Amino acid sequence: MPSFTVFKGAKDGKPVKSTTTRPDQLKGDQVYMRITASGLCGTDLHYKTVDMGLGHEGVGVVEDVGPDVKDLKKGDRVGWGYEHDCCSRCQECLKGNECYCPERQMYGYADLDQGSFGSHAVWREAFLFKIPDGLTDEAAAPLMCGGATVWNALRAYNAQPTETVGVMGVGGLGHLAIQFAAKMGCRVVVLSGSDSKKDEALRLGAHEFHATKGQTELKTSAKLNRLLVTTSAMPNWDLVLPNLAPGAVIHPLAVDEGNIEFPYMPLLLGGHAIQGSVIAPRHLHNQMLAFAALHRIAPVVETFPMSEEGIREAIERLEKGNVHFRAVLKN
Amino acid sequence: MPSFTVFKGAKDGKPVKSTTTRPDQLKGDQVYMRITASGLCGTDLHYKTVDMGLGHEGVGVVEDVGPDVKDLKKGDRVGWGYEHDCCSRCQECLKGNECYCPERQMYGYADLDQGSFGSHAVWREAFLFKIPDGLTDEAAAPLMCGGATVWNALRAYNAQPTETVGVMGVGGLGHLAIQFAAKMGCRVVVLSGSDSKKDEALRLGAHEFHATKGQTELKTSAKLNRLLVTTSAMPNWDLVLPNLAPGAVIHPLAVDEGNIEFPYMPLLLGGHAIQGSVIAPRHLHNQMLAFAALHRIAPVVETFPMSEEGIREAIERLEKGNVHFRAVLKN
Repeated sequence: MPSFTVFKGAKDGKPVKSTTTRPDQLKGDQVYMRITASGLCGTDLHYKTVDMGLGHEGVGVVEDVGPDVKDLKKGDRVGWGYEHDCCSRCQECLKGNECYCPERQMYGYADLDQGSFGSHAVWREAFLFKIPDGLTDEAAAPLMCGGATVWNALRAYNAQPTETVGVMGVGGLGHLAIQFAAKMGCRVVVLSGSDSKKDEALRLGAHEFHATKGQTELKTSAKLNRLLVTTSAMPNWDLVLPNLAPGAVIHPLAVDEGNIEFPYMPLLLGGHAIQGSVIAPRHLHNQMLAFAALHRIAPVVETFPMSEEGIREAIERLEKGNVHFRAVLKN
Repeated sequence: MPSFTVFKGAKDGKPVKSTTTRPDQLKGDQVYMRITASGLCGTDLHYKTVDMGLGHEGVGVVEDVGPDVKDLKKGDRVGWGYEHDCCSRCQECLKGNECYCPERQMYGYADLDQGSFGSHAVWREAFLFKIPDGLTDEAAAPLMCGGATVWNALRAYNAQPTETVGVMGVGGLGHLAIQFAAKMGCRVVVLSGSDSKKDEALRLGAHEFHATKGQTELKTSAKLNRLLVTTSAMPNWDLVLPNLAPGAVIHPLAVDEGNIEFPYMPLLLGGHAIQGSVIAPRHLHNQMLAFAALHRIAPVVETFPMSEEGIREAIERLEKGNVHFRAVLKN
């Protein structure tokens, strides 16, 4: 069987080059792609010591298709994210909510021989997203997970263009949330530790910016209907609570351990909600790509070569919080 | 000016009889009522040591109306709850969401000279609810706050008749939640400490009942789309989490201090939400009364005389958790 290059986690946390095979004959709706770019996401860091193919923000070009492939053909540009498969029969799948399918197959749990760090990949057509013409490969890659995560928080929970949307944290997720919410017509209020990212946040579409570190008071120009918390640390609620509109929804988006905590009576008296979510179901993911292409929304990326050295350097920078704002590996 | 009887909190926690006055001439849309019944709610316990008129689950008969009263007339049966007034101009009022009006006037914060424990009361017509014929005074009273609180959790957040609704706690709130959800067509799953309330919960419409105290496993017949937590203690999440459907909404409904806590990653991976809320805006309150009358939903009550002795006894029983299920004071 033909083989291709993948990069896997290793015990010492320094990913290594390896190979895996593809079937001689693709089956069902399998698609074989040459990878052109992959984003590096915070969740990849959790797997860097695991013997599995790394990467879940992939973009590539179709090289070969299985017999049941319907819409893709050689040369098409496609992307993929966390999910590889689902049961298509449960209530969640039937509702178009396949990210909550109990049999979903996803990064870190299934198909561990390959990821989006490598030369090629084989995935089901059903879980590939065609990349619109307006998006480059390196712009599309970080949308596959980071973009989908913030987009879903806005679109799956009915954010309105008349809302004031708070974005806490200006990084891989936050800088995309600012752009999406601004282009949806929302008033965008950014909360960040220091002033260092102020100019860039405003340039990306934020209407106002507040540095919160060490502050004892915060006054936003309008109360927040929604707050996307893109940092794993929760905000200082004492600072934020007076700025929440009644019914405000808090979306914790980063991965974290332990418990989430929120003051009990303010939750009730404000009618607030804390809404959990993951990435995006496929129909919303497609809408995100079309929206990004229409509005020329693109991640701010730093690129690294798709090699052991490139991957290790990108990981090191991400761990130090130095990536501006999303690392992309390129073949 | 004419005066009427009220019962106020007192430093030793034993409410005392007192009087307050009504205007010689009612103004605006003021309505003067003879109180027939009042529920006793858990939040009244917080005020029993405060020098203020107690009670916020009132029912009475109109005796006199001010010059701007439009719909009520002498002899009408009406009820009232936590709210007495709002600004009618803010976004929340304009949306019909007046319970979140920043200028709302409510029990414990305004109009402290009177409550629903007493002989009479004067309130604005705008905050009175006509009692449908099918509801007795003593059945209507506990709906004014307890009923509105659980009804709002179901109706303001779009509970569907096809949902499985969990109700934790079978008491003043829980026994109403069971009835409302069951009559909406929901599958109703009750979680209670022991089996002691099982028969009654099933009689009220629950489809299944689980005693959770000391249990290490719980398996409901269908996963919960919604869980109304009517106790101030949160459930053991380890027990409950495997029984939540994707996107399940948790509604904490009792008053409590401190922080609410929920496991972080299960919130995200399950797409769950913790939704705060208070009583119900007026349009939902009216719908609740019509629904209760249509479906013969009535609180299970114990009645006490509207007197110092009656009030003190009801409070004592409520504090010991012995009320079955809602105490009502009757004139």
